[in-house]
Amino acid sequence: MAPLGEKTKSLLRDVSTATLTTALFKRGLRNVFLAGLRPVNPRAARMVGEAFTLRYIPAREDLDRIDVYQDPKHPQRAAIEAVPPGHVMVMDCRNDARAASGGGILMTRLMVRGAAGAVTDGGLRDTPEIAELDFPVFCRAPSAPLNLAVHHAVDMGVPIACAGVAVYPGDLIVGDGDGVVCLPRHLADEVAAEGWEQERKERFLTMKIRKGAPLVGTYPPNEATTAEYKKWLADGEPEL
Amino acid sequence: MAPLGEKTKSLLRDVSTATLTTALFKRGLRNVFLAGLRPVNPRAARMVGEAFTLRYIPAREDLDRIDVYQDPKHPQRAAIEAVPPGHVMVMDCRNDARAASGGGILMTRLMVRGAAGAVTDGGLRDTPEIAELDFPVFCRAPSAPLNLAVHHAVDMGVPIACAGVAVYPGDLIVGDGDGVVCLPRHLADEVAAEGWEQERKERFLTMKIRKGAPLVGTYPPNEATTAEYKKWLADGEPEL
Amino acid sequence: MAPLGEKTKSLLRDVSTATLTTALFKRGLRNVFLAGLRPVNPRAARMVGEAFTLRYIPAREDLDRIDVYQDPKHPQRAAIEAVPPGHVMVMDCRNDARAASGGGILMTRLMVRGAAGAVTDGGLRDTPEIAELDFPVFCRAPSAPLNLAVHHAVDMGVPIACAGVAVYPGDLIVGDGDGVVCLPRHLADEVAAEGWEQERKERFLTMKIRKGAPLVGTYPPNEATTAEYKKWLADGEPEL
Amino acid sequence: MAPLGEKTKSLLRDVSTATLTTALFKRGLRNVFLAGLRPVNPRAARMVGEAFTLRYIPAREDLDRIDVYQDPKHPQRAAIEAVPPGHVMVMDCRNDARAASGGGILMTRLMVRGAAGAVTDGGLRDTPEIAELDFPVFCRAPSAPLNLAVHHAVDMGVPIACAGVAVYPGDLIVGDGDGVVCLPRHLADEVAAEGWEQERKERFLTMKIRKGAPLVGTYPPNEATTAEYKKWLADGEPEL
Amino acid sequence: MAPLGEKTKSLLRDVSTATLTTALFKRGLRNVFLAGLRPVNPRAARMVGEAFTLRYIPAREDLDRIDVYQDPKHPQRAAIEAVPPGHVMVMDCRNDARAASGGGILMTRLMVRGAAGAVTDGGLRDTPEIAELDFPVFCRAPSAPLNLAVHHAVDMGVPIACAGVAVYPGDLIVGDGDGVVCLPRHLADEVAAEGWEQERKERFLTMKIRKGAPLVGTYPPNEATTAEYKKWLADGEPEL
Amino acid sequence: MAPLGEKTKSLLRDVSTATLTTALFKRGLRNVFLAGLRPVNPRAARMVGEAFTLRYIPAREDLDRIDVYQDPKHPQRAAIEAVPPGHVMVMDCRNDARAASGGGILMTRLMVRGAAGAVTDGGLRDTPEIAELDFPVFCRAPSAPLNLAVHHAVDMGVPIACAGVAVYPGDLIVGDGDGVVCLPRHLADEVAAEGWEQERKERFLTMKIRKGAPLVGTYPPNEATTAEYKKWLADGEPEL
Repeated sequence: MAPLGEKTKSLLRDVSTATLTTALFKRGLRNVFLAGLRPVNPRAARMVGEAFTLRYIPAREDLDRIDVYQDPKHPQRAAIEAVPPGHVMVMDCRNDARAASGGGILMTRLMVRGAAGAVTDGGLRDTPEIAELDFPVFCRAPSAPLNLAVHHAVDMGVPIACAGVAVYPGDLIVGDGDGVVCLPRHLADEVAAEGWEQERKERFLTMKIRKGAPLVGTYPPNEATTAEYKKWLADGEPEL
Repeated sequence: MAPLGEKTKSLLRDVSTATLTTALFKRGLRNVFLAGLRPVNPRAARMVGEAFTLRYIPAREDLDRIDVYQDPKHPQRAAIEAVPPGHVMVMDCRNDARAASGGGILMTRLMVRGAAGAVTDGGLRDTPEIAELDFPVFCRAPSAPLNLAVHHAVDMGVPIACAGVAVYPGDLIVGDGDGVVCLPRHLADEVAAEGWEQERKERFLTMKIRKGAPLVGTYPPNEATTAEYKKWLADGEPEL
Repeated sequence: MAPLGEKTKSLLRDVSTATLTTALFKRGLRNVFLAGLRPVNPRAARMVGEAFTLRYIPAREDLDRIDVYQDPKHPQRAAIEAVPPGHVMVMDCRNDARAASGGGILMTRLMVRGAAGAVTDGGLRDTPEIAELDFPVFCRAPSAPLNLAVHHAVDMGVPIACAGVAVYPGDLIVGDGDGVVCLPRHLADEVAAEGWEQERKERFLTMKIRKGAPLVGTYPPNEATTAEYKKWLADGEPEL
Repeated sequence: MAPLGEKTKSLLRDVSTATLTTALFKRGLRNVFLAGLRPVNPRAARMVGEAFTLRYIPAREDLDRIDVYQDPKHPQRAAIEAVPPGHVMVMDCRNDARAASGGGILMTRLMVRGAAGAVTDGGLRDTPEIAELDFPVFCRAPSAPLNLAVHHAVDMGVPIACAGVAVYPGDLIVGDGDGVVCLPRHLADEVAAEGWEQERKERFLTMKIRKGAPLVGTYPPNEATTAEYKKWLADGEPEL
Repeated sequence: MAPLGEKTKSLLRDVSTATLTTALFKRGLRNVFLAGLRPVNPRAARMVGEAFTLRYIPAREDLDRIDVYQDPKHPQRAAIEAVPPGHVMVMDCRNDARAASGGGILMTRLMVRGAAGAVTDGGLRDTPEIAELDFPVFCRAPSAPLNLAVHHAVDMGVPIACAGVAVYPGDLIVGDGDGVVCLPRHLADEVAAEGWEQERKERFLTMKIRKGAPLVGTYPPNEATTAEYKKWLADGEPEL
Repeated sequence: MAPLGEKTKSLLRDVSTATLTTALFKRGLRNVFLAGLRPVNPRAARMVGEAFTLRYIPAREDLDRIDVYQDPKHPQRAAIEAVPPGHVMVMDCRNDARAASGGGILMTRLMVRGAAGAVTDGGLRDTPEIAELDFPVFCRAPSAPLNLAVHHAVDMGVPIACAGVAVYPGDLIVGDGDGVVCLPRHLADEVAAEGWEQERKERFLTMKIRKGAPLVGTYPPNEATTAEYKKWLADGEPEL
């Protein structure tokens, strides 16, 4: 597949996850929201990037000992070093937050390497430290135990489940204060454009609602409101 | 039933949900707290109003399509426009937060119309925007997907379940930082008065505890403490 | 068992719960994190103290009436007055947050009495008030109903379950922004010392990672990094 | 809507719930299976009938007292007497099996009145007795407490949720050993016919598989297998 | 407390758990059913006996090693040997069925010692073997792992939680095909007598319903039905 | 790895899952039981075979359409045809039983091909039909919807999670009436031999217990009992 245009990513940075779910719903996709994940740093929740996946299975005591990290090719560590710049690391922890899937040092390394963010449906440790980073990270819950206590990193770059949603490598992962949406790669361009337009329209409609317009005729807009909207666009999108 | 006196609402604005649950417990009601709901804007958690109910059932793909909103009588939109001023919109989403039961525009419209707040045991979208409103809104979790993905608004003004609690139209819905309590209408006047007195007493007792008084004799108060309390009231309720 | 040295507690105040779980994992202990508990006041999450336990079982309507508090020996109230200074009150509520296990007055009394904090796997009421205290309190969720609605305080000073973890009286209870860890008493001295060293090392390694060092060779450190670390220690631990 | 033809019901008695879900999936309906419900009497799991709905909300102690049944119009009792012959009573208990939604006497009365079965997403009491009836009853779990302990029957004949699925009055409710499916009324005739044909085909394909045919070419059938199937039909559907 | 009369136990053997919950509901007790427990051998579900309690907390790897059973005073083994004849062993496993709280040998020993049954809200192992015993045993689920993997037996003879219900030593534990009810000791005599009468009445009413009587007037019975019932009693309780 | 000796499998057919978990617990493995799975046909629960794995992720509406089965290489169908004789098909459905991971035709095909059984942590459809097969199949729950409604088969022969346990291809999968255990391949020979001996000893000890021996001295056996056991072995293992 051709590299994703920077245009699409740029547009998506102004599109909310709410708007994306509606655009995908119109295309028949109802299960695209990674339910129950929260941003560790709410001031850095805005996130757009292609998915780079890492899959965990349950730990086994004889395999998952503290010395496994002596192996420089350990899949968790290798994955951190393999995420391409601009990508989001997405981790499948089977929705199990009894242990962390990473901590402050790994999230810092991801940020330094230019990743666009990180998402896990497991836990994260060192969350007070991560909350200070200007880097989007989403998890199910803070959780102090190291990943080896519950999770075993097994492979990367494969399709995974994350928070009940299918994530294929290369899908667009978009985050904001509501949470995280997975936008299938082949729909990214058209949904980004449509979503950007929708955001602009909702900005206008919200101003109308704030000033007392009723829902009927406004949301969704009828012909009169649509005409008014077009005029507003022509007028340079002023505050109402 | 006669309209609720403004006095009762006014008193309730100074009564915590904790105090209300105790007053209702004394009357044999143990299941009045809508467990697991959080305020979207913690600075606007204080809420008092009569319940106006909206009931959702699960969505069905052939009925719940994006074009249903073209119908100006769609129950969700109609309900928003029907909530009387001073009432709280309470939504039964079967405790399912996989989708939103509303978003920024609908909550803004409710606020503009003079509603006292909104409560849902489902999700809400556009929560960063809602968190900026000076309007009490409680939900189970932020959730980006539009309600049609999971929920079907079916009727309003009927008794419902919300977060495991029975809510009858007209019941008093009270919210604060602990969450939301449903206070049956017929008990509202007496519980409001009793709760207001209890809050005043607890303000006094808390000052005593802060200054080192032991629980025994203070909480609950014995005769000596009760006498001291009466004197404090007579003295004009000074800081201790 | 001999009283715990103040040195150990002092060291633990600088050790994160994440680091503690790793030290315990190395010793074969995998289930030490009280999953799902959050600090009521995130600015006061740092907590270290010995466990003083209180056990609840389910309430029964004929036994758990509002007048039980007239008994000055009621186990909940007695427990609050019995927590030794420097100890953490740990409450077993069977992970059930449908009701509170305490509120503002009880937490204030604990603070005034010199307790080191409080932990419950149930709910807490008056959380807006507790969030203003400079006192570490962890719970599963805010919950307005009084404990009698769901819980019955039955005995204190016995081994309990809290959030899925065994807590024996005298174990070290350590809290921070990630949550709460139970550190068995007999391991406290050695784990405190090891943890304190590990924190110092991670401070150094984090600086290295921030400046662009790769994970391989740094985390965990190879011989070169270890030598560099020793030099950094000798140099007086400067900012890098 | 016109009364449902007896032909459609008759066909459905030979169609499994598995086959029905596939036919509905082809039409875009993915959420039609009432997950987690089991037949009380597995020998009487086969059930077909139109839905007659009853809705429960949570009980409230002052309203749900034992004397409510003195009212001959109590909604639960009235609903039992109102189910038309051939219909299935479907009860919305919010997936909460902490109490029963009925017991042996009510299920016996339903049977005597000619109902086609009963379905609840709550509990049922007297299950050993109900298991002896030749009458299809499905529930989430056996549960001894009377419904008033947790549930309040509120209205009948309205659209409801049952086990996470939308059930509209008049929908076809079909049960077998796998559980219960809700088949929307407007699709009943065509799905019944298609399902009946599919069952016949699967009977043939299963015999082929038992005799060693591989999945490829058989399930789904290729042209050769389809031709063989047609011959088998022409031959009078013999055992293979 | 005086020993329980054999008369009360004898009556209770003919009273269903459903009937007991209703009698306790009338006395204000709503939470007496141990939800979610099933008989291992459904043909041996009828059980009546006083509670003898055993409490488990979570296991800790350094304390719960296989060699603990070398200690003849290990609480789990000691408890089995301490259950008085006619009593029911009730185990608090915090509703966690990830491991067994006993197996075939322990259940056999209980039976041989004359216990009236066993109840656990955890798992049980060797369930195929236990299902062959003529001995009532209830658990949450079959579960092969030995208790040490998850549970630590800590003390006996104390009030416990079992399946969400308070169980005090000496309470009456009654089981049947619906599950298990805890009947507080001080109510046992009067509830046994009332329940026995209610069972007799329901036997009569069930015969009426089977023969076509409507619910109204029959269940609950009106004056005419009550008169008919009295005559039936006088007639020697014949089959109708 | 060398092929597994038939001797080991043969021994394992006489070893219960309970005994296996104890042997693995002694070796430090505590998480080997696939919690919550039940045999569809309880008379055919005995199962031993190497794991052949199939992994599912969540379905996506545009990818998981009914026509995917026209592709003879569809992973689910390909996996069924690829399971080697004597192996157990183990499916990772993320513990989600909202849809089936197979049905009667696929299970029949597995049986005909000589597989040793099938295990899924999702649902299964056509369970009444599967319950008639003399073939061990374990699932979380009966569930009518086809897998495409919720699941997407993605790859086979990789390490997976099943019911919370790590399953590596080639591990021994053992089932009985208690459920399913995963026995790591490298431990199979020694655990099989040890387990077989343990079963023989427990047969003896159970007879002792049935005849009235106390737990102390018998379970675990002291020297005297051990001597008695050796004599029993020498005597040809008679019924006691």
